[in-house]
Amino acid sequence: MTERSDLAELAKRRGFFFPANEAYGGTAGLYTYGPEGAALKRNIEAVWRDQFVRAAGHMEVESPTVVPEAVFEASGHLETFDDMIVECAECGATHRADHLVENAVPDVDDAEAFAPRRIADLVADHDMACPSCGASLAGRPVDEFNLMFGTNIGPGSSSPGYLRPETAQGIFVEFPRLKEYAHNQLPFGVAQIGRAYRNEIAPRRALVRVREFTQAELEHFVDPEFDEPPIAPVADVELPLYGAEAQRADAGGTETYTVREALDAGVVGSDWVAYYLAESLAFYERIGIDMERFRYRQHLPGELSHYAADTWDAETELGGDWIEVTGFAYRSDYDLRKHGEYAEAEYTVFRQYDEPKTVERATVDPDMSYLGPTFGDAAADVGEALESLAARDRSAFDGDAVTVAVGEDSYTLPVEKTGFAVEERTESGEHVTPHVVEPSFGVGRLVYSVLVHRHGTDEVDGEERTSLALPAEVAPTTVAVFPLMTKDGLDDRAGEVAAALRAAGLAVSYDDTGNIGRRYRRQDEVGTPYCVTVDYDTLEDDTVTVRERDSTDQTRVAIDDLPGAIDRLVGGATLAEL
Amino acid sequence: MTERSDLAELAKRRGFFFPANEAYGGTAGLYTYGPEGAALKRNIEAVWRDQFVRAAGHMEVESPTVVPEAVFEASGHLETFDDMIVECAECGATHRADHLVENAVPDVDDAEAFAPRRIADLVADHDMACPSCGASLAGRPVDEFNLMFGTNIGPGSSSPGYLRPETAQGIFVEFPRLKEYAHNQLPFGVAQIGRAYRNEIAPRRALVRVREFTQAELEHFVDPEFDEPPIAPVADVELPLYGAEAQRADAGGTETYTVREALDAGVVGSDWVAYYLAESLAFYERIGIDMERFRYRQHLPGELSHYAADTWDAETELGGDWIEVTGFAYRSDYDLRKHGEYAEAEYTVFRQYDEPKTVERATVDPDMSYLGPTFGDAAADVGEALESLAARDRSAFDGDAVTVAVGEDSYTLPVEKTGFAVEERTESGEHVTPHVVEPSFGVGRLVYSVLVHRHGTDEVDGEERTSLALPAEVAPTTVAVFPLMTKDGLDDRAGEVAAALRAAGLAVSYDDTGNIGRRYRRQDEVGTPYCVTVDYDTLEDDTVTVRERDSTDQTRVAIDDLPGAIDRLVGGATLAEL
Repeated sequence: MTERSDLAELAKRRGFFFPANEAYGGTAGLYTYGPEGAALKRNIEAVWRDQFVRAAGHMEVESPTVVPEAVFEASGHLETFDDMIVECAECGATHRADHLVENAVPDVDDAEAFAPRRIADLVADHDMACPSCGASLAGRPVDEFNLMFGTNIGPGSSSPGYLRPETAQGIFVEFPRLKEYAHNQLPFGVAQIGRAYRNEIAPRRALVRVREFTQAELEHFVDPEFDEPPIAPVADVELPLYGAEAQRADAGGTETYTVREALDAGVVGSDWVAYYLAESLAFYERIGIDMERFRYRQHLPGELSHYAADTWDAETELGGDWIEVTGFAYRSDYDLRKHGEYAEAEYTVFRQYDEPKTVERATVDPDMSYLGPTFGDAAADVGEALESLAARDRSAFDGDAVTVAVGEDSYTLPVEKTGFAVEERTESGEHVTPHVVEPSFGVGRLVYSVLVHRHGTDEVDGEERTSLALPAEVAPTTVAVFPLMTKDGLDDRAGEVAAALRAAGLAVSYDDTGNIGRRYRRQDEVGTPYCVTVDYDTLEDDTVTVRERDSTDQTRVAIDDLPGAIDRLVGGATLAEL
Repeated sequence: MTERSDLAELAKRRGFFFPANEAYGGTAGLYTYGPEGAALKRNIEAVWRDQFVRAAGHMEVESPTVVPEAVFEASGHLETFDDMIVECAECGATHRADHLVENAVPDVDDAEAFAPRRIADLVADHDMACPSCGASLAGRPVDEFNLMFGTNIGPGSSSPGYLRPETAQGIFVEFPRLKEYAHNQLPFGVAQIGRAYRNEIAPRRALVRVREFTQAELEHFVDPEFDEPPIAPVADVELPLYGAEAQRADAGGTETYTVREALDAGVVGSDWVAYYLAESLAFYERIGIDMERFRYRQHLPGELSHYAADTWDAETELGGDWIEVTGFAYRSDYDLRKHGEYAEAEYTVFRQYDEPKTVERATVDPDMSYLGPTFGDAAADVGEALESLAARDRSAFDGDAVTVAVGEDSYTLPVEKTGFAVEERTESGEHVTPHVVEPSFGVGRLVYSVLVHRHGTDEVDGEERTSLALPAEVAPTTVAVFPLMTKDGLDDRAGEVAAALRAAGLAVSYDDTGNIGRRYRRQDEVGTPYCVTVDYDTLEDDTVTVRERDSTDQTRVAIDDLPGAIDRLVGGATLAEL
């Protein structure tokens, strides 16, 4: 299919998703999920939760989307989460300046990494024009635009806040409390599924680049020295890898490695990342991604976030392009260390030694009655400098006098006035800042990829049919119930059948409009795997027709056995096995 | 228990909820749900969805939380969604001015309804002081502060937006599309569970008055003339009602009415509202609300929203106060009518007549070659005025001349120049603006009420025990698994048992820290209904001990039968029946 137009039309007509507020002219980058899309999205989230939270024994939290500024000062988002924009003097439209440069200048494909000044020069040198009105952009300033939505918490502007750009920070910030729930023992994982926001300058391509989206993130806190993922059970899992080296090679492409091979060859640097690449494959398959249109791509050195050591993206192929649907990052201790610096709490875990250790510690206890009169205002700073010198280099106290630096000045004093001593202490453990392994899934992009990959046409009874071959587990409706006609009690009977299936916990829809063929087509288009028809035979023998979406095969099933039969079909049974 | 301190402490210590960003000094009105609270909240949402969406056959959507200004111009929120504030000149603190007045002036308990000017006068007359610093507030202006969080969509400030104050507008705005999914047939219901925001001046009382919260709203679109709720099946349901009249009576209290009695006596004015009051009772019971501490309270005329005809709140009793947990409003056609006026789309449904009707329509077709020269600039307006006059009062065209008013001017012209005619037309139906019945649930307040109502202490083995008697369906953990000791293979065996229960789809936790008694207490505190202990007998006969939270009774169950046994317990079986 052509992804863009056909799918957008289907998505809108059948209620998967559509641009929000179209009656008010629409709002770029904001989409509403209709009944079918919201159900599909929820089902995909449920599969994610089942695998990455429940089965894995991890915790899940819900933090606010409105977050005070201090958190993003620490995380670095206030400083670095921005795009370069240029505004047209003529028409006032704003554009992503780095994208203009990439489109206009041959050989430049990483303009995002350039300084704004250099971008502005390139805009002028190539005499670029405003894409909206054609006026020249030469000489216009290139600014950095922070992509967080800003707001104020409470009246006035004294408490600025932002809509979170990722759900992760809501976990990192609360680490001091979350570790208590994990009994202060590494490793442990904390997940969150929720909205995140990015005030895009140029939203595009339906659910791919939007201003409000849903993330499913897992933050796995591990001891960098002692915790290792269980590689053995996944060692033979085959990963479709598009490594940095392959990307640099002229004719490089995706290559298949087992987890073991990828680690041995150093293609994947972190065994935690390799573990999650392997674990996630089953998830993508389960929700309906076409694994022939899927790969793991390594970030090139220039792409890496400031905090990340090795990062891989899961990508799906959509209409010839590859789209990131998940990021797998080894975030090291960056996030917890930064919050530890900025916030009033301990972002560490106490790691108990197997045996208590006896350690020597050099300490000072300066004689302030000497330092005060001698160094005046600098006395306190000199005291601190002595303390850190003792911890750093105790040999400096070997002689009679010791010299410390405070800013650009240095001060010398007799060692006997420093109270220098070396003590023996018994320590039972040490404080460790955990490292973070983060698989971060974009739920909307997964929904979109599944729709594109599962959408297809075939021929049924000589007519072209459009269908959505969704796995039963994620399909919005599991079973649709039709009365053959809305008379002779068929509709009442069908209503009872639908009610019984609903009571059994299934997602059921009921349709009595139009002819049966048209109703099948409608269910095929929204991916309903099974349809049940109540006809005149039903009134005689209490059986119904069950029809399977993909094969269009049909069979008769007793009404009493129907909920069980549908359950078995969802579990993988074929019609013939019922 | 004392609701505030004990529960806040338990909620924090055990991971139900806690103030967000405490490491950064906290942010009033923003809470994070910890692992236990997020699970409880999610389970309550699942029960709501099961009853109000799935079983009822309604649709569910997901709309963005960031909404452009035009939507709130239409909905009225931009104009009226505000509180009165006064700012202290001395310390800069802001306060709710109406609350200050209510606290200081005897007999005033509805200051919210006063004009800001009157509030300012009362503040001055009573010489009120700033609650923060004690400075006088006399003479300070009282302003209206809009409670929506504002932001900008895209760069610059040309596209203002707001965080939605209710999920409902995301449904109303998309009505023109949603009705298509309902095959243009009333009645149909559209639900949404999601975040909503209210930039409170003075957030308070944990999850009760917060700045970011979760709503579960159902908008039931009905034909005001023809659609009636199925009252018969609920006619005998008993409702604990605290009506407007009882509230005005000196010694009035909650009275029990059946649905039929309440409607016959006119206590509940709308049968749709009565229907939902009845339907919702089962929901509150199912999630664990103490129905002895529950009532339905009618809004007094002064409390009613501008759009609502009859509104009832469900209220739970918490520490002596009654807290609104749900609003049941008959919103009439207000919302759809407003959007129909402001937006470029049809917010109506076409109602087919049983038989086509022949109707007479009076129309005009003014002779503009006469109106133009005669009335100049006013000609077009005169034409429009003629059109609406013909529709309104065709007798005005009975004479030779007709007079129409345009603003303050009136214009007279010969009837023959108006092209007046009466036509017969056959119409197959008419456009109707549906009415809206809205049950709107505050999820956080429900979570909080359930925690308060289910929290209690009793005595077990001579020691006081704290427990949370949550229904199994909403408990964060369904079953906890303990090895008696972490040696002799007991822990490995317990790990296998936990894995088997997880594979069966249950919410399982595993705990091997501290003695068994302490582990039971810990699970009792978070409301886990069943605990399973693997002991030395397990190694002999493959059975485990199952212990029930509320009775603390225990029994032995074969490991093979364990998932089934837990399922039966959750379904209502007793230990003795296993």
